[in-house]
Amino acid sequence: MRIDLNSDLGESYGAWKLGDDEAMLEVVTSANIACGFHAGDPSTLRATCAAAADRGVVIGAQVSYPDLVGFGRRHIDMEPSELRDAVIYQLGALDAFAQVAGSRTAYVKPHGALYHDAARNADYAEAVVAAVVEYDPSMAILGLPGSELLQAADRAGLQPVAEAFADRAYLPDGGLVSRREPGSVLTDPSEIAERSVRLVTDGTVTAVDGSTVHVGAASLCVHGDTPGAVTIARAIRAAFDAAGIDVAGFCALGS
Amino acid sequence: MRIDLNSDLGESYGAWKLGDDEAMLEVVTSANIACGFHAGDPSTLRATCAAAADRGVVIGAQVSYPDLVGFGRRHIDMEPSELRDAVIYQLGALDAFAQVAGSRTAYVKPHGALYHDAARNADYAEAVVAAVVEYDPSMAILGLPGSELLQAADRAGLQPVAEAFADRAYLPDGGLVSRREPGSVLTDPSEIAERSVRLVTDGTVTAVDGSTVHVGAASLCVHGDTPGAVTIARAIRAAFDAAGIDVAGFCALGS
Amino acid sequence: MRIDLNSDLGESYGAWKLGDDEAMLEVVTSANIACGFHAGDPSTLRATCAAAADRGVVIGAQVSYPDLVGFGRRHIDMEPSELRDAVIYQLGALDAFAQVAGSRTAYVKPHGALYHDAARNADYAEAVVAAVVEYDPSMAILGLPGSELLQAADRAGLQPVAEAFADRAYLPDGGLVSRREPGSVLTDPSEIAERSVRLVTDGTVTAVDGSTVHVGAASLCVHGDTPGAVTIARAIRAAFDAAGIDVAGFCALGS
Amino acid sequence: MRIDLNSDLGESYGAWKLGDDEAMLEVVTSANIACGFHAGDPSTLRATCAAAADRGVVIGAQVSYPDLVGFGRRHIDMEPSELRDAVIYQLGALDAFAQVAGSRTAYVKPHGALYHDAARNADYAEAVVAAVVEYDPSMAILGLPGSELLQAADRAGLQPVAEAFADRAYLPDGGLVSRREPGSVLTDPSEIAERSVRLVTDGTVTAVDGSTVHVGAASLCVHGDTPGAVTIARAIRAAFDAAGIDVAGFCALGS
Repeated sequence: MRIDLNSDLGESYGAWKLGDDEAMLEVVTSANIACGFHAGDPSTLRATCAAAADRGVVIGAQVSYPDLVGFGRRHIDMEPSELRDAVIYQLGALDAFAQVAGSRTAYVKPHGALYHDAARNADYAEAVVAAVVEYDPSMAILGLPGSELLQAADRAGLQPVAEAFADRAYLPDGGLVSRREPGSVLTDPSEIAERSVRLVTDGTVTAVDGSTVHVGAASLCVHGDTPGAVTIARAIRAAFDAAGIDVAGFCALGS
Repeated sequence: MRIDLNSDLGESYGAWKLGDDEAMLEVVTSANIACGFHAGDPSTLRATCAAAADRGVVIGAQVSYPDLVGFGRRHIDMEPSELRDAVIYQLGALDAFAQVAGSRTAYVKPHGALYHDAARNADYAEAVVAAVVEYDPSMAILGLPGSELLQAADRAGLQPVAEAFADRAYLPDGGLVSRREPGSVLTDPSEIAERSVRLVTDGTVTAVDGSTVHVGAASLCVHGDTPGAVTIARAIRAAFDAAGIDVAGFCALGS
Repeated sequence: MRIDLNSDLGESYGAWKLGDDEAMLEVVTSANIACGFHAGDPSTLRATCAAAADRGVVIGAQVSYPDLVGFGRRHIDMEPSELRDAVIYQLGALDAFAQVAGSRTAYVKPHGALYHDAARNADYAEAVVAAVVEYDPSMAILGLPGSELLQAADRAGLQPVAEAFADRAYLPDGGLVSRREPGSVLTDPSEIAERSVRLVTDGTVTAVDGSTVHVGAASLCVHGDTPGAVTIARAIRAAFDAAGIDVAGFCALGS
Repeated sequence: MRIDLNSDLGESYGAWKLGDDEAMLEVVTSANIACGFHAGDPSTLRATCAAAADRGVVIGAQVSYPDLVGFGRRHIDMEPSELRDAVIYQLGALDAFAQVAGSRTAYVKPHGALYHDAARNADYAEAVVAAVVEYDPSMAILGLPGSELLQAADRAGLQPVAEAFADRAYLPDGGLVSRREPGSVLTDPSEIAERSVRLVTDGTVTAVDGSTVHVGAASLCVHGDTPGAVTIARAIRAAFDAAGIDVAGFCALGS
């Protein structure tokens, strides 16, 4: 039994600090590192890539819409070709720091609004995939199970990797309950850790209606942007260790 | 007899267009392509790299301070480590498009205020050189003869490449007459073309006081940001062809 | 008989120049001046406000999404409250330069994607209107006839001002033919001038199917971003003068 | 006996939060609010102006170089006319929110590198002052005692207001010990509170060499960007209250 743990890192910007990257790098095996478009100045990219490489954590590119003030959380109605080029730009920039750190950018996970848009909109999914195919087709694509993004990755010959969310309530069809709904985000560390273990051992999760949903995922997304989130992430990791689940990156390090 | 011709390209940004890149790519052998910090959105980088690669023009990174509104022409008092990381970010971003175009980024030429600062300030020169050493030490460095930048490149084992300016008046010591002085910029195409040929064949130029100055340069910088500038660039190229001077990049293409 | 002529001005940014503002200020009576979010650095705002004030041209705020690289042409999915605040910021910034020039910002016309979104989306229309009500309810709102924006302005007690387009083909229902359709943009100066005169004298225009459409508009939008556009704008102005149509701003100058 | 307390506020940006503005608004009488160039998105400006106005705290414009990633802490070699226009832009933008909140922008305090540059460089001091003279000469200027900025303000007929720093070590000549020196920043709340009281009651402070320095200041700058800073600010305020010192803004509210 084996699972990857991924988290968003490198999301500081100049004087503004966000998240406890040091703590999370002790927990996760894959680091989705911001590339400068929604967060992440060059020196933050460098430091985060170096810290990930030092710990053997796999580096992924957390590509985004160009929107610092909106933190990449707002849809921008870009032409697919503009989006493809914006992704290539970010991949090159982050990969430079990954290489300088002696590692490489091994996968791509879109951030924020782009994550959702690329999950549902085939044009945007294909734009992200086209960027990766052009820049480095050995990179994997991390996203929602069944999403347009993973389908497009698969069609293009890239490795699609599905992820689950330990702290989110699921719908009976395997979708996530909207954040606007009460109860959509779980907060009890032991409950979340227990669900996480079952996600790996059984491949299932209990949906909001009590039904059992199959969720096939090679990676589990955890957050580190609040002290509570770090506590949850540590609880998940400890539960995996206790259950004998191997926590390891879905991508091999090195080139 | 052989010389390289370099020019600043890819300096459009979104709806704003600058320069006649198509015309200049027929004239030059090295393209200093903007990297997004003073000019150059991702789609412009892509198009410019592709157009350069199509014509066999060598791609260089025109790295800059982060200053769109100032077009990189204003000194920003960055820490050397910040500057180094800002340069690495730009190198990676541009190189992505160079690679996608089937070429590579073969050299670096700082832009605007960074060009002048890296020529005179050893800390800034070393920051730029450190970025190149870390990212790809096979890249050459293009700059002013005798500058701190070329000295630092040499010390670090990078290839330093000196450039001359066909349309600028020279001081007796080989420096350029400040743009603020009258007569600092030449405008007559035939005079400029004649000076350019002599720069290659004799390695000399007549300074403002009438003395003869030795200027050793492997590349000649030409401009394309006005219709008049394009006319001058074409006149120089034609004069080289007529004089049997081989116009060729100082860097080999391909990896 | 009387009409206002409005045009987008002040859309340069740093080293990048766009449009022939000097020429257009001799033609128009209302200047939609960019506020820095899609175009217009502070010194451009200053110069454009001063030039407008010098000629007695009324100053309007061409407010936009925050999107320099996209020139404000891309929808950004902002919260209405964010949009309202972004508009207030721009109104204050532009109005500072209008006041320094001895004038004032007399009206608001959204730019690009925001123009279209505020025409069709009531939430966005109300966000723009709320910003104006809060900042200065003496400002008028310039927009599409019948748009959500003008309806919201009317409900809020602001002066709604409808505009027509001299160079655009109209649908039988008074809408504009999409720019993606062939023939959507007219280019013959004399034809456009003739249509413009009829728009004022009859309040009608011939639609693409040959039918006559009533278009009630107090202002006519003209463009100045290409040499051809300036020629068209001058032809319209000359035709108005010849037809004895009074070209005057819909807003009074001064406070 | 009377003193003003000022602090930098409104320095969050989008998802990134900085400082405890709510706590500091209970302590200070003057709020230096960021204007968007080094920090402060439009909705943050709005919320901060509203919170200040609600508590009767005077609003000042914390104008800056355009440098989000550097938080305005890096000198940018702007032309004085560019700087003047950048300041006007920021004054108008912030003042819009001050007015919407039912208050007004009553003074200007440059931020970061601009604070230091305008203290020592007469051209920059005059550029800032020119902006204020043009936009609203009823605004005061807050800065270092004896600085070029306050001298230029005085010459231009603006109200110059000198400030002292409660937590900084002073040189015998009244200058501040550089932050790079050990002991330059004091951290003991009771010591800082005691010095603050003496600054008001005696107009003196003990310099690093033990000598007594006269520091005439109408305002005291306190910080709120860390939990420790907030504790210090509260200690100062409590000490003033205990000493019978009236803490009140140097500018009257309202126009």
